Amino acid sequence: MTETMKIMKQFMEPQSVALIGVPRYTGEGTFNVLENLLGYGYQGRIYPINPSVSEILGMKTYSSISEIADNIDLAVIATPRTLVPQIITECADSNIKAIEIVAQGFLDARDEEGKQLQREIDSIVRARQVRILGPNTFGTANAFINFSSTFIKIKMRRHPIGVICQTGAFLMGFSELAFVGKGLDLANACDVSFSEGLKYFENDPETKVIALHIEGVHDTKAFVSMSGDIARKKPILALKTGHSEQAAMAAQSHTGSLTGRKEVWQAAFKQAGIIQARNLEEFIDLVRTFSVLPRMEKPKIGVVTISGALGVMAIDASENFDVEIDELPPKTYKAFNAMAPAWLKVSNPVDIWPIMITAQPITKLLIEGLEALLADQELGAVLFICAAFDEKWATSLCQIASEAAAAHPDKPIVCSVYGPSGGQAIQEMQDVGKVVGFHTPERALNALARLNEYSRLRSGL
Amino acid sequence: MTETMKIMKQFMEPQSVALIGVPRYTGEGTFNVLENLLGYGYQGRIYPINPSVSEILGMKTYSSISEIADNIDLAVIATPRTLVPQIITECADSNIKAIEIVAQGFLDARDEEGKQLQREIDSIVRARQVRILGPNTFGTANAFINFSSTFIKIKMRRHPIGVICQTGAFLMGFSELAFVGKGLDLANACDVSFSEGLKYFENDPETKVIALHIEGVHDTKAFVSMSGDIARKKPILALKTGHSEQAAMAAQSHTGSLTGRKEVWQAAFKQAGIIQARNLEEFIDLVRTFSVLPRMEKPKIGVVTISGALGVMAIDASENFDVEIDELPPKTYKAFNAMAPAWLKVSNPVDIWPIMITAQPITKLLIEGLEALLADQELGAVLFICAAFDEKWATSLCQIASEAAAAHPDKPIVCSVYGPSGGQAIQEMQDVGKVVGFHTPERALNALARLNEYSRLRSGL
Repeated sequence: MTETMKIMKQFMEPQSVALIGVPRYTGEGTFNVLENLLGYGYQGRIYPINPSVSEILGMKTYSSISEIADNIDLAVIATPRTLVPQIITECADSNIKAIEIVAQGFLDARDEEGKQLQREIDSIVRARQVRILGPNTFGTANAFINFSSTFIKIKMRRHPIGVICQTGAFLMGFSELAFVGKGLDLANACDVSFSEGLKYFENDPETKVIALHIEGVHDTKAFVSMSGDIARKKPILALKTGHSEQAAMAAQSHTGSLTGRKEVWQAAFKQAGIIQARNLEEFIDLVRTFSVLPRMEKPKIGVVTISGALGVMAIDASENFDVEIDELPPKTYKAFNAMAPAWLKVSNPVDIWPIMITAQPITKLLIEGLEALLADQELGAVLFICAAFDEKWATSLCQIASEAAAAHPDKPIVCSVYGPSGGQAIQEMQDVGKVVGFHTPERALNALARLNEYSRLRSGL
Repeated sequence: MTETMKIMKQFMEPQSVALIGVPRYTGEGTFNVLENLLGYGYQGRIYPINPSVSEILGMKTYSSISEIADNIDLAVIATPRTLVPQIITECADSNIKAIEIVAQGFLDARDEEGKQLQREIDSIVRARQVRILGPNTFGTANAFINFSSTFIKIKMRRHPIGVICQTGAFLMGFSELAFVGKGLDLANACDVSFSEGLKYFENDPETKVIALHIEGVHDTKAFVSMSGDIARKKPILALKTGHSEQAAMAAQSHTGSLTGRKEVWQAAFKQAGIIQARNLEEFIDLVRTFSVLPRMEKPKIGVVTISGALGVMAIDASENFDVEIDELPPKTYKAFNAMAPAWLKVSNPVDIWPIMITAQPITKLLIEGLEALLADQELGAVLFICAAFDEKWATSLCQIASEAAAAHPDKPIVCSVYGPSGGQAIQEMQDVGKVVGFHTPERALNALARLNEYSRLRSGL
């Protein structure tokens, strides 16, 4: 194992962790990392350090790192900023190599003291061969071992997603995407950088998709070259923020990052085969899509819809994206004509509503409709536009779509779900993990377009 | 009262309704409009018509309209298409003026019989002065009187929103926007049109915002002129679908509408002072925003954020929209500097996180932060970027933001909520109805930009 992989495993899969500056208070609003860690069911060895008390939550506390006899994989420092350089030195003295600095007020501050403290940290790093994550970081999280060093209690799910970010927001998660597998918050990125995170996720068998939230990268050239190698094997998705001068200023306050010009980044991502999201919503959609669906090898999409109006919206959207919603072969139409009233002219999108209200049971019809499109060899993917009238329907839709996907594991299925219980259906689809649900046809088609883009990019890498 | 208002009140506020073609079966999957109507608690008089049975759900059924002795405000026809012309004639004979045709297969079909049936309907309408909604309609819904003629059971909430649409999807609602007040599904729009719907909502005291889903309009000139008059009084939001030739074909299958060129529509909307949504998601966001928030008279926005990274994303987004996130006056900074650690350089967006982790309790700080921005006279609106760590936090955030809005009723507040319980916070905000929540800063800022656009448009009308 290389030195990089060894140290990254200590950050991402620690077997023992020292928590320096654990609050003595526990319960709501205290943001106690120890309390969180016990709650997750983390099985590693935990050493809380707080010189003012002798125990917290029934665990013995230590007054300093030097008191701990064990080998420590990871130290998490959450103290006032002025104490940080001294504590890093103590870590080095105790042979702790992987250190997360949660404390703020270094290059993210704009005062002289913050800069001076960062310089001190830098020189300790050089002299003592310790590695620093942060400062100003939420640290790391790994749902597969129930570990997170965040002082906000997060909800973890085991998805095959590796996140490298510059904000804890991505470890905390979003309501459309709970925390997602494994995460590394580089934050100010004074030492551990995107390259090391990429190296780890490239070799991590639990990670299928790599998601990057980037404010700035120090060594862009190395980043692009390494990403290009990895993107051949696993998709890399990126959200680059901080486009304008004003945003760059804000990013500097946030993580001390230099953000760089938009066009330069676009070119770099393209060269590296990275799929760039246009905004946070698309980023979340793409992470959900790429982590669940198989590759989409053809740009043509078959649409079955229970709303003619939303079918029209799907066509509108397809004009803006690199996908096709075109006529289907006679064989496929024939399958639908067998179910439809004689007056109905079946086309793509297939408006299944007039068939539904004349045929029963509806679920059987939806299953047959999806099957007819999934069997069509010309189609690269299927969009199912459906309504969750109520909670029960939401569950039925999820089941219908997920079973269709299980029978056709090589063809991506996305669902656009309206109706009052649409959100529930989308959530259930995500829990089952066979299809991806969206609130609108536009979002569903955009996700497919980007999925197909990866197949094309990949063949060019 | 004009003849138009009188007939539109029969469609929208019927005191008695005949349901022609009620299914004899009830319960799940039967889509029984009578069962729905009884479930909503509709207080009007209901006359189910089904010649094959004598009662349904304990209610006497009639074998034809002529048997009913009462005055009927509204007839809802859900029979096979071939029976429709005869039933309309019977309605006219019984002096029923307002008729909804739920049946499909007229100009939405592409066969000769459908066209012929439509011609028959047209000639009855001319000869007998009845008014037709549809065909192919979900009918009307009015949450204020617990009435809906949809055969899908919908969830109704009393919001001050009037919807005129060409698909039942908008009566069924979306998970981000349950059905919304009052709705009129024009569908094929063979007779009752956008103009009559607009007339009704213009004069309806329960409607504050008018939302249009348009596939095609027959008399565009009258539509534009009438909209311009109304938009001075109430905002009109529109989603125009069916841009391309292919979409136009699909729209014709769906409602028989001629859709028309995109640029022509954009110009028409602009002239009429209508706010045009770019897609379904934006349409839903705008309906939520315009029905809750006060006017936004200035384009400058103050942002308070607990995530520096999402603050950066807000600035990125503001570059794409017609809003400003600029430096704040010294007085406002002073309020924040009084709370912040000395090293923090406060700017707009105000990154409140470094203040939060040094000051307690957090809720007090968030309240003071919002108050500092709301008191700033230069700002037209406030964006609050916050995280719902868990269910309890979601409720707290909703309370903090809603109370701030109640104290400043003239200043719009939008929230961008991340964290795993973000969706719950957004839902609670909608239920309280003082602020509007979004999943991302981009969506929140776009909604504000469009809100401000209405103020500018209005001053030019």
